[in-house]
Amino acid sequence: MHELDRVLQRIDEDLTTSVERLFALLRIESISTDPAYRDRCRAAADWLAGELTALDFDAAARPTGGHPMVVGHDRARAGSPPGSNPHVLFYGHYDVQPVDPLSEWTAPPFEPLIETGPEGGKRIRARGAADDKGQLMTFVEACRAWKAVAGSLPIRVSVLLEGEEESGSASLEPFLTQNADELRCDVALVCDTGMWSREKPAITTMLRGLVGEEVVITAANRDLHSGGYGGAARNPIHVLADILSALHDREGRVTVPGFYDGVGEVPADIKAQWDALDFDGGEFLGDVGLSVPAGESGRSVLEQIWARPTCEVNGIVGGYTGDGFKTVIPSKASAKVSFRLVGDQVPDRLRERFRAFVRERVPPDCKVEFRAHGGSPALRLPFDGPFLRRARTALAAEWGEEPAIVGGGGSIPVVGSFKRILGMDSLMIGFGLDDDRIHSPNEKYDLSSFHGGIRSWARIIAALAA
Amino acid sequence: MHELDRVLQRIDEDLTTSVERLFALLRIESISTDPAYRDRCRAAADWLAGELTALDFDAAARPTGGHPMVVGHDRARAGSPPGSNPHVLFYGHYDVQPVDPLSEWTAPPFEPLIETGPEGGKRIRARGAADDKGQLMTFVEACRAWKAVAGSLPIRVSVLLEGEEESGSASLEPFLTQNADELRCDVALVCDTGMWSREKPAITTMLRGLVGEEVVITAANRDLHSGGYGGAARNPIHVLADILSALHDREGRVTVPGFYDGVGEVPADIKAQWDALDFDGGEFLGDVGLSVPAGESGRSVLEQIWARPTCEVNGIVGGYTGDGFKTVIPSKASAKVSFRLVGDQVPDRLRERFRAFVRERVPPDCKVEFRAHGGSPALRLPFDGPFLRRARTALAAEWGEEPAIVGGGGSIPVVGSFKRILGMDSLMIGFGLDDDRIHSPNEKYDLSSFHGGIRSWARIIAALAA
Repeated sequence: MHELDRVLQRIDEDLTTSVERLFALLRIESISTDPAYRDRCRAAADWLAGELTALDFDAAARPTGGHPMVVGHDRARAGSPPGSNPHVLFYGHYDVQPVDPLSEWTAPPFEPLIETGPEGGKRIRARGAADDKGQLMTFVEACRAWKAVAGSLPIRVSVLLEGEEESGSASLEPFLTQNADELRCDVALVCDTGMWSREKPAITTMLRGLVGEEVVITAANRDLHSGGYGGAARNPIHVLADILSALHDREGRVTVPGFYDGVGEVPADIKAQWDALDFDGGEFLGDVGLSVPAGESGRSVLEQIWARPTCEVNGIVGGYTGDGFKTVIPSKASAKVSFRLVGDQVPDRLRERFRAFVRERVPPDCKVEFRAHGGSPALRLPFDGPFLRRARTALAAEWGEEPAIVGGGGSIPVVGSFKRILGMDSLMIGFGLDDDRIHSPNEKYDLSSFHGGIRSWARIIAALAA
Repeated sequence: MHELDRVLQRIDEDLTTSVERLFALLRIESISTDPAYRDRCRAAADWLAGELTALDFDAAARPTGGHPMVVGHDRARAGSPPGSNPHVLFYGHYDVQPVDPLSEWTAPPFEPLIETGPEGGKRIRARGAADDKGQLMTFVEACRAWKAVAGSLPIRVSVLLEGEEESGSASLEPFLTQNADELRCDVALVCDTGMWSREKPAITTMLRGLVGEEVVITAANRDLHSGGYGGAARNPIHVLADILSALHDREGRVTVPGFYDGVGEVPADIKAQWDALDFDGGEFLGDVGLSVPAGESGRSVLEQIWARPTCEVNGIVGGYTGDGFKTVIPSKASAKVSFRLVGDQVPDRLRERFRAFVRERVPPDCKVEFRAHGGSPALRLPFDGPFLRRARTALAAEWGEEPAIVGGGGSIPVVGSFKRILGMDSLMIGFGLDDDRIHSPNEKYDLSSFHGGIRSWARIIAALAA
């Protein structure tokens, strides 16, 4: 029997005790946003540091300005030379969401249990079962099985477990900055995403970036009466509406000059895979009461939300907005506008191009002010890189299905922080399902997610070593 | 000496006592919006009813749901046959604005005095001096002089003095409706407007109408995250901006089909008169910090605000409008839109055309709702009618300047009520000046306005009888 097969067999045999260990962690009420649970967060961090230490990691719960950060480095391979098998940094988080409304839970949120789902499958029920304690333990258990069977891991492994993911991650970037040399690895393994479906695994390889801008148009130096001035005085709402309307053409494309510089096309094989996915754009829109895709024509809905840049007005206000009516020509009108970025679009360059586009359209006696609200580039793992290729193979072997190579329309902040501060790409692989009810009462994690997740990591560890 | 000359002479001789009578009225703190002054409003009404009774009017302060309405009919001509000299209804209001901030008054607001203005002219200083006690007393004093000199007025006169003009006129329309037959005259003389300048009188002959509409666009059935949905889901702010932007063409004209039906052109002589007025459009806009006329190109600023219909967005709101940023695609966005009407534009027809214009531009999976916020047609006195012609001649004789025939961009509600309920046109003639500080501390009314106003009415009364 090959070594990996023995590791997988060990995982199967050990599943009951793996679940028991997860239960121990799930019993710790590590709600990071509520100061009343500060000690419990500390307890969860200590528990995890203890588990890693028992697996011969040099591990500790290290202090931050907020909750502790658990860091562990596998002692067994601490001295392996650079350039040999890759050094990975596994990331997860041990803090959980609050549990209110408590009355909607059918069993206490911190008393985990196994229940049978509507389709007969077993599932682990507790706050944090899926987000993210169950997920992070899939990796810990995979390491345990490897060490038990082979004596050591075939790659170099470090672990970073955060305690503030559900409450803003205030300590994360300072900690990464202060410990950059220690934490910089060849690739991060981020386990906080989901499967495509119960049968089909997924790897998230692209996240859109974001540029936020606020535009304030000022016309007259005070609000005017539309009777006395209407027809002669400039209305800043009209100016703003004209500008916002000009941002898209009839094909749904953004008209800011140079906007599509660096966008690029998704490789044909990935696009073909997306087209083959069991995804119904009509159903996706129908779930929120829509039916007509509103983005660029000639693009599938998946392409629109994963691989195409956008411009959205997220807020607009001007003039009188209360009950009734007031015949005012306001002095000011403003909008919050954001851009989702893909490929190599450069946030600052795009911001400047947008501002130029607006300035060109502001009448000479109006004023425009801009306020920047953050900017981050898109993130993506090279489609043809070795890490992605090996992870795909490993997941396909475990699940009997090619993993979906998916995008994320929004951001996952830790992935951006790893890239920006450590220069490190992330492989985002997780085993959650859409019906896990994370952040809601009665959160669950399928036993098949937990079991398959451990086995998947065991295979990925082997594949990365190859 | 002609009769009119003797009337004018009498007015000049009587000026001091006319001012004393006005002072008596100005001492009554008739602030209609403040319930604490309810008795004072009653006192002002009683005082006026007493003055009219003394002039042989059948007059009384008549109860309403709010403050009393003073109505008086000249007894001397009560039986004159219809179709002879016209029957006029003079309108003014005896209530005044609150006086706060009191600390900014350089003398107590209800202790009237004569002061000397910066240019050496005398002026009457008190709350209500110009708006509207001083103005309404110009007519009462003109009637007094006529009766003193000629024994009777040469036309039939009724008087209506309101006590709620500064607080919403809630009782006005019910009172007009209940007493329509009693109050319906050939023409109303409304004395609540101003001169063109200290030297040049004015008659307001046109007021724009108004249609108010609220438009609510609903896209998805809930707010969406712009990461997960941006690029595929319809953004109702974009839909709304497109619609609002389409409402005007590049020449500043409103694009709603049929919008200009019934608008018509101002007669060439009136237009020529407007062009000759001492009015600087650049200065008018410059006072509020603007410089570029924003309305229809090829029209003067006066034409734009008096004689052209408009479409203005008075309010817009959608999405996140607080501090900071939220990457939301909102479910709803809404705007309040109003139209100023001129000529024969029909409010309800225009509302329907606007709604059709919007509906055509709403994508099939979005919903649009409309809320009507009032509608009133434009009002105008026929440029070639006898009342206007005679009043022009009378004012020109008094001031040595042709009166400016002006428009009003906004509405004067009582004029609309007279038209709608009594079918009666109004001649709007007043003697206020732009620097009278109505509604503000240190309100004043030039003695020349008061004196010239009395003389003007004496002449107009004579002219209408001719």
